[in-house]
Amino acid sequence: MIFSSDNWAGAHPAIAQSLVTHADGYASAYGTSELDRKVEKKLSDVFERDVAVFFVGTGTAANSLALASASRAGGVAFCHREAHVTADECGAPEFFTHGSRLKPVDGKHGKMDASRLEVEIRRYPLDNVHGGQPMAVTLTQATESGTVYSLDEIEAIAAVAKAHKLPLHMDGARFANALVSLDATPAEMTWKRGVDLVSFGGTKNGCWCAEALVLFDLSKAHEMHFLRKRSAQLFSKSRFVSAQFDAYLEGDLWLDLARNSNAMARRLADGIAASRTSRLGWPVDANEVFVILKSDVASKLREQGAVFYDWPVPHDLSGSLAANEGLYRLVTSFATKTDDVDRFVAAC
Amino acid sequence: MIFSSDNWAGAHPAIAQSLVTHADGYASAYGTSELDRKVEKKLSDVFERDVAVFFVGTGTAANSLALASASRAGGVAFCHREAHVTADECGAPEFFTHGSRLKPVDGKHGKMDASRLEVEIRRYPLDNVHGGQPMAVTLTQATESGTVYSLDEIEAIAAVAKAHKLPLHMDGARFANALVSLDATPAEMTWKRGVDLVSFGGTKNGCWCAEALVLFDLSKAHEMHFLRKRSAQLFSKSRFVSAQFDAYLEGDLWLDLARNSNAMARRLADGIAASRTSRLGWPVDANEVFVILKSDVASKLREQGAVFYDWPVPHDLSGSLAANEGLYRLVTSFATKTDDVDRFVAAC
Amino acid sequence: MIFSSDNWAGAHPAIAQSLVTHADGYASAYGTSELDRKVEKKLSDVFERDVAVFFVGTGTAANSLALASASRAGGVAFCHREAHVTADECGAPEFFTHGSRLKPVDGKHGKMDASRLEVEIRRYPLDNVHGGQPMAVTLTQATESGTVYSLDEIEAIAAVAKAHKLPLHMDGARFANALVSLDATPAEMTWKRGVDLVSFGGTKNGCWCAEALVLFDLSKAHEMHFLRKRSAQLFSKSRFVSAQFDAYLEGDLWLDLARNSNAMARRLADGIAASRTSRLGWPVDANEVFVILKSDVASKLREQGAVFYDWPVPHDLSGSLAANEGLYRLVTSFATKTDDVDRFVAAC
Amino acid sequence: MIFSSDNWAGAHPAIAQSLVTHADGYASAYGTSELDRKVEKKLSDVFERDVAVFFVGTGTAANSLALASASRAGGVAFCHREAHVTADECGAPEFFTHGSRLKPVDGKHGKMDASRLEVEIRRYPLDNVHGGQPMAVTLTQATESGTVYSLDEIEAIAAVAKAHKLPLHMDGARFANALVSLDATPAEMTWKRGVDLVSFGGTKNGCWCAEALVLFDLSKAHEMHFLRKRSAQLFSKSRFVSAQFDAYLEGDLWLDLARNSNAMARRLADGIAASRTSRLGWPVDANEVFVILKSDVASKLREQGAVFYDWPVPHDLSGSLAANEGLYRLVTSFATKTDDVDRFVAAC
Repeated sequence: MIFSSDNWAGAHPAIAQSLVTHADGYASAYGTSELDRKVEKKLSDVFERDVAVFFVGTGTAANSLALASASRAGGVAFCHREAHVTADECGAPEFFTHGSRLKPVDGKHGKMDASRLEVEIRRYPLDNVHGGQPMAVTLTQATESGTVYSLDEIEAIAAVAKAHKLPLHMDGARFANALVSLDATPAEMTWKRGVDLVSFGGTKNGCWCAEALVLFDLSKAHEMHFLRKRSAQLFSKSRFVSAQFDAYLEGDLWLDLARNSNAMARRLADGIAASRTSRLGWPVDANEVFVILKSDVASKLREQGAVFYDWPVPHDLSGSLAANEGLYRLVTSFATKTDDVDRFVAAC
Repeated sequence: MIFSSDNWAGAHPAIAQSLVTHADGYASAYGTSELDRKVEKKLSDVFERDVAVFFVGTGTAANSLALASASRAGGVAFCHREAHVTADECGAPEFFTHGSRLKPVDGKHGKMDASRLEVEIRRYPLDNVHGGQPMAVTLTQATESGTVYSLDEIEAIAAVAKAHKLPLHMDGARFANALVSLDATPAEMTWKRGVDLVSFGGTKNGCWCAEALVLFDLSKAHEMHFLRKRSAQLFSKSRFVSAQFDAYLEGDLWLDLARNSNAMARRLADGIAASRTSRLGWPVDANEVFVILKSDVASKLREQGAVFYDWPVPHDLSGSLAANEGLYRLVTSFATKTDDVDRFVAAC
Repeated sequence: MIFSSDNWAGAHPAIAQSLVTHADGYASAYGTSELDRKVEKKLSDVFERDVAVFFVGTGTAANSLALASASRAGGVAFCHREAHVTADECGAPEFFTHGSRLKPVDGKHGKMDASRLEVEIRRYPLDNVHGGQPMAVTLTQATESGTVYSLDEIEAIAAVAKAHKLPLHMDGARFANALVSLDATPAEMTWKRGVDLVSFGGTKNGCWCAEALVLFDLSKAHEMHFLRKRSAQLFSKSRFVSAQFDAYLEGDLWLDLARNSNAMARRLADGIAASRTSRLGWPVDANEVFVILKSDVASKLREQGAVFYDWPVPHDLSGSLAANEGLYRLVTSFATKTDDVDRFVAAC
Repeated sequence: MIFSSDNWAGAHPAIAQSLVTHADGYASAYGTSELDRKVEKKLSDVFERDVAVFFVGTGTAANSLALASASRAGGVAFCHREAHVTADECGAPEFFTHGSRLKPVDGKHGKMDASRLEVEIRRYPLDNVHGGQPMAVTLTQATESGTVYSLDEIEAIAAVAKAHKLPLHMDGARFANALVSLDATPAEMTWKRGVDLVSFGGTKNGCWCAEALVLFDLSKAHEMHFLRKRSAQLFSKSRFVSAQFDAYLEGDLWLDLARNSNAMARRLADGIAASRTSRLGWPVDANEVFVILKSDVASKLREQGAVFYDWPVPHDLSGSLAANEGLYRLVTSFATKTDDVDRFVAAC
């Protein structure tokens, strides 16, 4: 009953095995091997257009490099108030962008509200040098709250960004979970709706360590090569990443893994909704379930071996919890099994 | 006959297999798993004292973080003129240290001369704010020229650094190759001779992607945790690194792999020294062989399948090459086989 | 009727004249002249202890260098939500600190609430590398809202900072205005209540360009010399700053100038409070008056030559304005004359 | 007999007086006053085209901002080995450019050799991400060695820069001295020969503190506004700079001042060349004289009140000094008088 995070799981066997398969022999280094090229080609197919692919070591690196490519002096990027990029990356985006700032935008359940975004951007008119200048918008799909932006919601955000000539970045640490939740294609969820670059995460969905920054604007690729290298993110044996992605993308394994995570979260949510001792904090779209429990219930679940984290109560929920209740986050992964879920629900 | 670089090889089977073995199950993330702890303990054993271990993605990251931990305003770090840190890291150390500078120190065959180091440091007296202030010394072991500092040479460099109260960093991208070359212990090659922190590289010696920054001064560990994270180098499933190091260090596999690389380089060097068409640029200490060849010989070797790089001729060698000769670098690895070497020597 | 800002005024005649007096002859450069030393000595007298003084070009530079001296990886500094350092310095503090972040703390009328500060600091526990680590607290005296922290309020903020081992910086762009408002000594308003370093501003109070960063902890002076120089803030003919400060401090001119500003603001506030068409937004402590006016009244005042800025309505005031009312800021300066004030009040 | 540096002099009376003249009254702040506009217009006249003018506090700031405007990831700027920007700015350019590097180019008497520049740029081919990428060229006019690039030499440097699509910056800390030395117009010495942006220095030539970055490419002005502000270089009472420049440019005062400096240096050089105890290190083009003296002669001159600095002996001169000789730098300024020079020459 490990629901602490999807990065507590290890790697899918096919992905780990790919690292054995490709261990033999020689290949050119620093992102130039045949396997690297093959995966780049695969990703162009996945996104239905030529894309520039940059393997990096962490989602934080992908996000930070994305913002670095949009960096301007006194720059301000806009994200949801609870976004990973602002809450959990220890200032890496600010470091990579030489001191730019991330301004929080409000919105329900982890999703930026497009009209709030417009208001926040307008706080930085280009003729007021004191405030700084807008430089980018970044949204998380699926969000930190486990919700998923609809295609129209993405388009609305993109429209605001475009109106201010700002690039739109998608933090896709849980890209696959969002994708299968929407039953959309990668193209539909990104560039067809105005997204300019994507942090394409594989690690949380069954890889060991496989993250890629995907650029739709190929003219940005030259500078990104240097940005990545000077940020110490260019792997020498880069095919240890491409070997993982090769297996990950093969036969749509990545979508199957995400479907399992989401299905397990759905099963968990349904069980919780039906229980008498617990209830959902808000709707479940992907592989994260936020649940309101009495503190003593949470303690007893933990005594029985369930592992999960406390979660800060967001503003819009603060009135609806009783004094002896807390908010908790449960995350399912590619490795979560029906049995884990059912034992948890039974224990509730 | 692949002698282009040791990072063209893949991974040793035992190391790749370890990533399969540990793929199953759950473990806590971000460097806190049992396996992470086990490897840290192993490294403390290897270095014969308690060390703080920070897994990172690249040698460039380890080097850059080492310098970042010594960063001062207007800071100047000292390294050999041809060191990787100044020649091949695209300014990553400068970026990680917010604009500090690397000053080249001369010395034969890739090794800083201690007396030259003293001269260079003295160019930055602490009462001259215009020049900047010294902040660190970094040496590469084995060097970019494939040579190895003797223990006494390391101690001489350390003495200069200590006299100026500067930390001494060792870039150990080829740590194991140097170690078996000297037949020394890790403790002898580092802290017992005045080294303060080490980039402990596994990638070039048979890992897929396994680098660690090792600190001997545990009081620096707190800040390094934040430096690593804000540099986007903290892996979530960190045990993909520890799984590699676990196999790497098990039964001294790492030393065996380095012994193979060095032996193959020795065999190559001996063969070249005995040939009529080629000669060594300088002595071979580890797993890199620098050879002077007539250009047409080099071309023919490449036609027969040998892969190796041209290398810029250093100043002290420039007089000794004929007009139709060039300098070339041959690198052996854990995967190099006697047969590869013998075919190359025969072709010479 | 110029009430736009105290930096719209020029320089006090005695201060401008000092630049003529000292224009002749030679003196050593880069902060080492006799006049520089004399002013440093004067400031030590002013603060009743040995201080280290660093002349810089702007208040933004002083603030940014203060934070830079406290910089840590992933660092977070705490300031009031409306502080100049976060709202009006275009990210300079973030740039000088290599990407640290400023976290807003709430509190009435521009003053951080000490208990809110405690809550915000606790959001960054030192064992959570993802969030980052606290690095400094900075308060503005007088505040952006024209209010002044009492000595006890400063001490309360300092107590929180000290409990978390954070240095406390005071942005004293309007230091003199606060000082005469409190009728306190510089020592009482700073280090005796726990302030560690001060941006000591002269520009807004009658100098042309005279700002100094004052450190009470002399052990920080060495690094600050290099921080200032590498930030391009070390003036060659530094005595153009000390010449201004020399006249500024002579015979307590600086306090007289601030007393005039504050008295003019008080006169303005009293006149407004007594008028039928306007009222004060909140109490006036120093030389800034925030007034609520009907929009058409504001327009008419401007037509009659009054110059002043619109001001964003803070949250706690938002309910108390009518639809046709706006909030406006009036700033008085050393140069403001009774007649300007009386004409404005008459026009109200 | 103060020949230590041109920044040991104070300010020209007319310039100091201008700060008194403009001290009265009010004007809008942050570079928007009428006087600011007037000086910008004057500088457009001086350069015979529309220019964008950015006042800053130091030459180091102007140079660093110039390079910041050209900044690229892993960027490398090229300058003469002894240029102020690399030798005397404490890493400010590297800080402002987030860790880019300055690569030294050789050349006689402080002037980059265009063919050496070409060689150095070619060390950074754009397809080698490891080395980094060229980003700018910067030359100093007059140089640190007191020499002056001819117009053709500037054009040759510019041709190399343009061939590699690199902007060419001129550090004009002693712009006026070079200009009157060449008897050229500002346009001829800059954009007509391929210079893209200029650090236009007034401080060394009789101002208190007046430096401007002048851009010929107006499309770069938007970003520069934000670069300057986030670097804490935007003055509030900016007209304290424009008041100085107003007097400086009025009636070609600036050229008269530079003519005096140069004439005094010429007189000094002639006297030294004619003396038996001293000789010139190399030709004198502007207001700096490098002289070879016996150490005891230097000591005696200092005993008699002459103030001047020791100077490091450049490589190409090293063979030509006797053991008991040293190299010394003498700098004349707008304030240097014939009598000072004659006393020095007599004492030689």
